[in-house]
Amino acid sequence: MGDDGKRHDGVRVLAAEIAAHDGEEVTVSGWVHRVRELGAVSFVVLRDRIGTAQIVYEGAAPTGPENVVRVRGHVGANEKAPGGFEVRAVETEVIGAVSGELPISVSADVDSFGIETLLDNRIASLRMPKVRAIFELQAEIVTHFSDYLRSHDFTEIKTSKLIGTGTEGGTGLFEVDYFGEKVYLAQSPQFYKQAMVASGLERVFEVGCAYRAEKHDTPRHLNEYVSLDVEMGFIDGIDDLMDLEIGILSHICEGVRASRTGAAALEAWGATLPDADTLAKTPRIDYDEAKSIAAKRIGKRLFELNPEAERVLCEWAVAEYGVEAVFVTGFPRKKRPFYTWPEEQRTASFDLLFRGLEITTGGKRIHDYRMLLEALPKFGMTPEQLPDYLSIFQYGCPPHGGFAIGLERLTQKFLGLENIKAASLFPRDRKRVRP
Amino acid sequence: MGDDGKRHDGVRVLAAEIAAHDGEEVTVSGWVHRVRELGAVSFVVLRDRIGTAQIVYEGAAPTGPENVVRVRGHVGANEKAPGGFEVRAVETEVIGAVSGELPISVSADVDSFGIETLLDNRIASLRMPKVRAIFELQAEIVTHFSDYLRSHDFTEIKTSKLIGTGTEGGTGLFEVDYFGEKVYLAQSPQFYKQAMVASGLERVFEVGCAYRAEKHDTPRHLNEYVSLDVEMGFIDGIDDLMDLEIGILSHICEGVRASRTGAAALEAWGATLPDADTLAKTPRIDYDEAKSIAAKRIGKRLFELNPEAERVLCEWAVAEYGVEAVFVTGFPRKKRPFYTWPEEQRTASFDLLFRGLEITTGGKRIHDYRMLLEALPKFGMTPEQLPDYLSIFQYGCPPHGGFAIGLERLTQKFLGLENIKAASLFPRDRKRVRP
Repeated sequence: MGDDGKRHDGVRVLAAEIAAHDGEEVTVSGWVHRVRELGAVSFVVLRDRIGTAQIVYEGAAPTGPENVVRVRGHVGANEKAPGGFEVRAVETEVIGAVSGELPISVSADVDSFGIETLLDNRIASLRMPKVRAIFELQAEIVTHFSDYLRSHDFTEIKTSKLIGTGTEGGTGLFEVDYFGEKVYLAQSPQFYKQAMVASGLERVFEVGCAYRAEKHDTPRHLNEYVSLDVEMGFIDGIDDLMDLEIGILSHICEGVRASRTGAAALEAWGATLPDADTLAKTPRIDYDEAKSIAAKRIGKRLFELNPEAERVLCEWAVAEYGVEAVFVTGFPRKKRPFYTWPEEQRTASFDLLFRGLEITTGGKRIHDYRMLLEALPKFGMTPEQLPDYLSIFQYGCPPHGGFAIGLERLTQKFLGLENIKAASLFPRDRKRVRP
Repeated sequence: MGDDGKRHDGVRVLAAEIAAHDGEEVTVSGWVHRVRELGAVSFVVLRDRIGTAQIVYEGAAPTGPENVVRVRGHVGANEKAPGGFEVRAVETEVIGAVSGELPISVSADVDSFGIETLLDNRIASLRMPKVRAIFELQAEIVTHFSDYLRSHDFTEIKTSKLIGTGTEGGTGLFEVDYFGEKVYLAQSPQFYKQAMVASGLERVFEVGCAYRAEKHDTPRHLNEYVSLDVEMGFIDGIDDLMDLEIGILSHICEGVRASRTGAAALEAWGATLPDADTLAKTPRIDYDEAKSIAAKRIGKRLFELNPEAERVLCEWAVAEYGVEAVFVTGFPRKKRPFYTWPEEQRTASFDLLFRGLEITTGGKRIHDYRMLLEALPKFGMTPEQLPDYLSIFQYGCPPHGGFAIGLERLTQKFLGLENIKAASLFPRDRKRVRP
């Protein structure tokens, strides 16, 4: 790495920086993105981690697409070159040779392939700049999510994904052979984040894998996903949580837009993000009201908030409040886990719907030990099933609550991706455990 | 949350902030850490996420240890109170009651308990401020690790932990039942981070879980740990990687020391961290030289760098270079995975030993497809076992390498913890899958 350790490697100049070296000899390195041979002269588009540059050769280009090359040459102005400058090659060394044929062309239009083709050829499709941009934006989401919480006194935690018992019910869990004992992959860090609130950290977050062994095959489900989990103590109610989430999302949207890679990804996908003023207008409506609004727009009676209802509720929020998001609150007790704070037959809970999809589930939790003991039998559970979990509340726990944002769902909705699998580097579904 | 969203909840004032409210009525909330009853007057130490405050009651204290309370009272100066101020209680509400007995006292001396007792009573022991401090420091490590890499153009990735085949050999892998198919928990994101370097991201990092199904029971092994993984393209050799790691560790040490929680954790454990100038002196010695230095200090012939050798090599580095760290380079080919860049019978690889323990393994990788094909049979492998992995190199891949730092090992060595399990919130070992 160079002195500043940042934008060049030794004498390497990045493709995006050649304009600053007009008239100089430079070395650029990267992948041959595209080759255009015109007989007397050839143009190569060189791709590196930041951008692309045009390389000019007299005669034929020395090598073909996806070979990794190091090119020494002179920078010169050319108004027809992207960025106004090009490198006139003196010497080209292939430092990473292609062996054989690529199954799909990296410089092809991403939208000309279906999701299954992109995933069946994942090692190749991840090279497509527009595909790579999804994950550059995703990294920005994680950065700004974490930054916001750290600056609000939240501590990042890393908890075990191997759990001895499936506390949220045994279904939907992947079983692991742990030295001959059956354990499970955690569906969420729910109990751990509650334990850490109660430990005195008060405010915690985790970015980690979560697993659902559900046999669905929809454009909105993954069997392994990244969960952005938040839990906060000393809350008065769920409005504190929804305020926090709006703060987080506003910060993420601003941060993504302001970053080089985030802005480039939005542009590549023709997407925009709401600003903080818009997100602040997100309405908070009760479950019954949500059902009735959705039923009216769909034109038939609804027994629950199904995906169609989630879509029309977001349309309603745009029409009424000018924001593509809506909080639905007060879910019925039977639709929420046993640990949710009850309010008669309802709960102090919420979902956040964004651009037609539920991206968050959250709520206040039961922090009182006796209340939790009363709740268990209503869900067919016994205290003996949950000794560790119950001890969190036996030892003194503040009122608290939290939520989880699905990273891939947020990425999907930020960029308008049709299928959530496009927002996972190496998605796992019913049929797919490779690569 | 308040207007600044940061240091108070509604009218809540944090324990560490009462001095700024001298003479005012405030509300503080937290856990009853300790109670001292003197008859006419009682003192309660209230603990919250940042610090502690003394609460004074006329007569008896209203409640006992670990109850969560909200206390309204007047702030007054008292030179005997920690910080010079106390809250004279007017009204106390128990908002999170203790039910039953705590198995260990939260205000007791951590060092009076063995590691097994601390882990057998994990929900209680995590409340001990000195235990909690371990994880507050750990969060700072993750923050500064990530920040440094982001500022050097590295992209954070999140890769699958469910892998279809055990590419690094079938032993040491936990088996998962994936819809009736056998898959495994990943030992490292090795192949994924290489794929992402080759995808064009060039520089990637991941903070994620890694799994080793090894039946060891030592103070330096965990079956589930957090791996801080780094991979970088367009390197000239392993010196680039070691330079990068010294940069990362310097930034982490500085960041931990400069942070409130990091500094407090170091103080609580009586630990110090090396500064950047010291780390820059870390020697880089060849494997044979390392063996001969260690053999000399131990006084017997060595066949490999065992834990004792790692300890004495760090002692040697302190004596010779004034730094508690040493890079050992050029490991024999048989001691490194098949994908390590060979140099005759040796490899372009390194370990970083710090305070007597190997905290990092890294190296340059084979990026040339044909060279990889030649390497496989030497390790008893066939191309048919690794079609996805091989395609990374078939499509054109730059010279690259990387390393992984074990988060818990680094935490352990930063604080001088005897057992690595103390550096994991919910450690998993041969006998422990709870809580």
